[in-house]
Amino acid sequence: MSPVAAADAVKRLRAADREIILLEHTSAILSWDQETFMPHRAIDERSAQLSLLQGLIHRRVTDSANEALFEAAGCSAENAEGREDLDAADRAFLRQAYRRYRRATRLSQELVERFAAAASRGQAVWAAARAADDFAAFAPQLSELVELQLEIAERIGYIDEPYDALLDQYEPFTLTSDIDRAFGELRRELVPLVEAIGSAPQLDDSVLRRDFPAEQQAAFGDKVMRALGYELDRGRLDVSAHPFATTLGAHDVRITTRYNRNFFSSAVFGTIHEVGHALYELGVAEEYHLSVLGEGTSLGIHESQSRMWENMIGRSRHFWEHFYPILLEHFPQSLADIDREAFYRAINRVEPSLIRVEADEVTYGLHVILRFELERALLNRECTVAQLPEAWRERSRELLGVVPERDAEGVLQDIHWSMGGMGYFPTYALGNLYAAQFMETISRDLPTLWDDVRRGEFSLLLDWLRRNIHIHGRARSARELCVDITGSELQAAPFIRYLKQKYGDLYGI
Amino acid sequence: MSPVAAADAVKRLRAADREIILLEHTSAILSWDQETFMPHRAIDERSAQLSLLQGLIHRRVTDSANEALFEAAGCSAENAEGREDLDAADRAFLRQAYRRYRRATRLSQELVERFAAAASRGQAVWAAARAADDFAAFAPQLSELVELQLEIAERIGYIDEPYDALLDQYEPFTLTSDIDRAFGELRRELVPLVEAIGSAPQLDDSVLRRDFPAEQQAAFGDKVMRALGYELDRGRLDVSAHPFATTLGAHDVRITTRYNRNFFSSAVFGTIHEVGHALYELGVAEEYHLSVLGEGTSLGIHESQSRMWENMIGRSRHFWEHFYPILLEHFPQSLADIDREAFYRAINRVEPSLIRVEADEVTYGLHVILRFELERALLNRECTVAQLPEAWRERSRELLGVVPERDAEGVLQDIHWSMGGMGYFPTYALGNLYAAQFMETISRDLPTLWDDVRRGEFSLLLDWLRRNIHIHGRARSARELCVDITGSELQAAPFIRYLKQKYGDLYGI
Repeated sequence: MSPVAAADAVKRLRAADREIILLEHTSAILSWDQETFMPHRAIDERSAQLSLLQGLIHRRVTDSANEALFEAAGCSAENAEGREDLDAADRAFLRQAYRRYRRATRLSQELVERFAAAASRGQAVWAAARAADDFAAFAPQLSELVELQLEIAERIGYIDEPYDALLDQYEPFTLTSDIDRAFGELRRELVPLVEAIGSAPQLDDSVLRRDFPAEQQAAFGDKVMRALGYELDRGRLDVSAHPFATTLGAHDVRITTRYNRNFFSSAVFGTIHEVGHALYELGVAEEYHLSVLGEGTSLGIHESQSRMWENMIGRSRHFWEHFYPILLEHFPQSLADIDREAFYRAINRVEPSLIRVEADEVTYGLHVILRFELERALLNRECTVAQLPEAWRERSRELLGVVPERDAEGVLQDIHWSMGGMGYFPTYALGNLYAAQFMETISRDLPTLWDDVRRGEFSLLLDWLRRNIHIHGRARSARELCVDITGSELQAAPFIRYLKQKYGDLYGI
Repeated sequence: MSPVAAADAVKRLRAADREIILLEHTSAILSWDQETFMPHRAIDERSAQLSLLQGLIHRRVTDSANEALFEAAGCSAENAEGREDLDAADRAFLRQAYRRYRRATRLSQELVERFAAAASRGQAVWAAARAADDFAAFAPQLSELVELQLEIAERIGYIDEPYDALLDQYEPFTLTSDIDRAFGELRRELVPLVEAIGSAPQLDDSVLRRDFPAEQQAAFGDKVMRALGYELDRGRLDVSAHPFATTLGAHDVRITTRYNRNFFSSAVFGTIHEVGHALYELGVAEEYHLSVLGEGTSLGIHESQSRMWENMIGRSRHFWEHFYPILLEHFPQSLADIDREAFYRAINRVEPSLIRVEADEVTYGLHVILRFELERALLNRECTVAQLPEAWRERSRELLGVVPERDAEGVLQDIHWSMGGMGYFPTYALGNLYAAQFMETISRDLPTLWDDVRRGEFSLLLDWLRRNIHIHGRARSARELCVDITGSELQAAPFIRYLKQKYGDLYGI
């Protein structure tokens, strides 16, 4: 096959890819509407619409013509990027498109449907089991899902262990052994740090539970998100039960938040977090728009963006030097007796707790490590489903020093496993690690960074993130980005250094 | 082919139809979002998404397998409803599905694309020509569109004249000669009625231009639409530049409005109008949901619903007996010195004007007749594009007694022709005729109707409309509905009687 024919094959694959992405965005519009504005009796039809779109996408991804096209482009199991005489953009495209094709074709329609049905039942059974605090009721369902995940992993293939195949859906080109190494380092350092914080006098965060009317929260949040560089002609903020960011187009990335009148942190920090995700998607280079390369490269890198903005910037002392006076204008009564430093301390209180979604930035990683270790053990058959509740309690004691009395607050607390989402949890913690590792480079590259933050000025930082991370979309993997930017692979040390400095200061340890 | 095979063919056609409707609803969600919440830089991608969906719909409608299926079901040019041994629901389904199939397959892809391109250019050229008041700049584009519409009419086929084929897109199973007969009657009666009104002392509507803040308008409009029976778990009201109703699903029919602080009528009567459309779509029988039968049967019947609620109910004296005290609570300042009767007279002022979209319910029909006569003459080659501006002025003088000085306020005022939308205008006036004809039956069937309206109670009326009109969806044509309900075909006389009674009283003539 001549190079011209290879280029022609790529052209045809790109045309099909464009339709796939348009359909994915269409699907995202339907889901966004479902979570924000849809009248509630439309729910069954909405599911039918979404399921039809998923079918159309699957048919295009697995189209029988694709095999010959990928072959003509030079793609194979050993060489996903295709012929070496193709240009870099085509090879980057082929790597992701071929990966998507292989994953989709290796799973039979029958297996996909069996898995979707089990996951759907799983969610319903889990919800009832959690409400009744009855793990035994969920156990058979979970066992079935573990077996299905193993079957999927075998079909997709993996390098060292089945977990690789599952992780790869969310964090492509990253291995379980990479996570294991980084999380091991994190665990060794975090456990004593949390213990030390626990022995120091606790910070007072009661101010956050005063009265914060939603309208003022929204007005303040609007100022913050604009200051961070979120373009409202390419996105918008709405209210939903669970906050999210979603890509409806290269120029249409929307976020949601929720307002809790008696807890300040949820809306503002939630908004900053989702803005971080949105800025990433909005920063992808135009040449990758409407293609498989036109989105964030992995969930871990995505979380690095959201958590950098939320925690490293948004929960920094410097950030509130600029924003606290503005916040006071919005809540003159509720904050009258609170100075900036007291507020800063309140929003950074650390406390080991049972529930992951309520955890602070220090203990959060331990919740993730617990889940990663258990789901990996399940898949390696080192732990059975029946042993899971006790294993959870044991690890919770080891890692966090707290033990759930009820499984509803332990092994049953998260929805992920019930949906067949094993391999997802690590990406939450990877975000913190990548963020801290990137931040060390950024601090060197941008000597005025913290002075800028103090003035509510974020354009240099956003520009840096765009040039070094966002612009590449999925043309560079998480690993490639990390090495290019920091000179080394994923490490836990920068995040540990960040935590020790920040919380050493806050807790006097 | 045996009856079993015919039933099987219907089953397969119904499965394909369900996907077509799901895709149409998906497309409607995207369009709704575009008009309400979409960030404006997403517009190009949104067009690409919509165009992809249109292509998918077209491919399914024209699928090469369909020909054999329709044949197996017994459909032919002479018998669209298929075999007589099929049940009534299947035959009603086949009539509409086969009609859609024939229309779509008779037009070549090449012609559809040529027409879409001309219509798209046409809109742009028209907008510039209207802004510059330069008909000559638009004339070549309009000529091209007229030729294309004739080409389309020839391909689709027609009974008496090309206009039939165009009208049939919007008002299926109705002929140009039906319209001509009804409009002739309407014209003969309306022209002298408008002249008589013009000679009587004019009503004062200056109150409508006082200060009506949008928030209070919205609060009042919310009460009205709930009272009319619009279910907010199956629909919602948002703001858009041009008000519309749109069907996103059988349980998801949304409407929009716009608030003009200094003109009371636009939001409230616009909302009532769109609620009328929405109630129709929401009232279709469940057995027709997610099928080609699951929507309003024609634009004329649709307008009969919207205009009945807006004008016959919403602009009646009885309606404001209930709602005027509530309105006063919302605008205590602006309406302090206005009694109910003065308000009723203000909202019913009649005045011949140049612009159709600003016309009252009496003169509105004359604007439509003018357009119908001209577009029909164009298609029958009884008038050339070059003669159009003068023909417009002449007819405007005859029908309305006013003559536009500028073409921008005459022949260039509407977007429809520039989009290739000839045959659409009549449906606006058909709505008034059908509404009045239905209303004479309703008044006999519901003796308490106006007492109910006086109490803000509309459930008997809505129930009547559901049972007699809405529930049938597209299973009955406009003509069939009209004959079933009123015992005769479309007539102008009931509407004339309605106008003479109402405006005779208002203007003392």
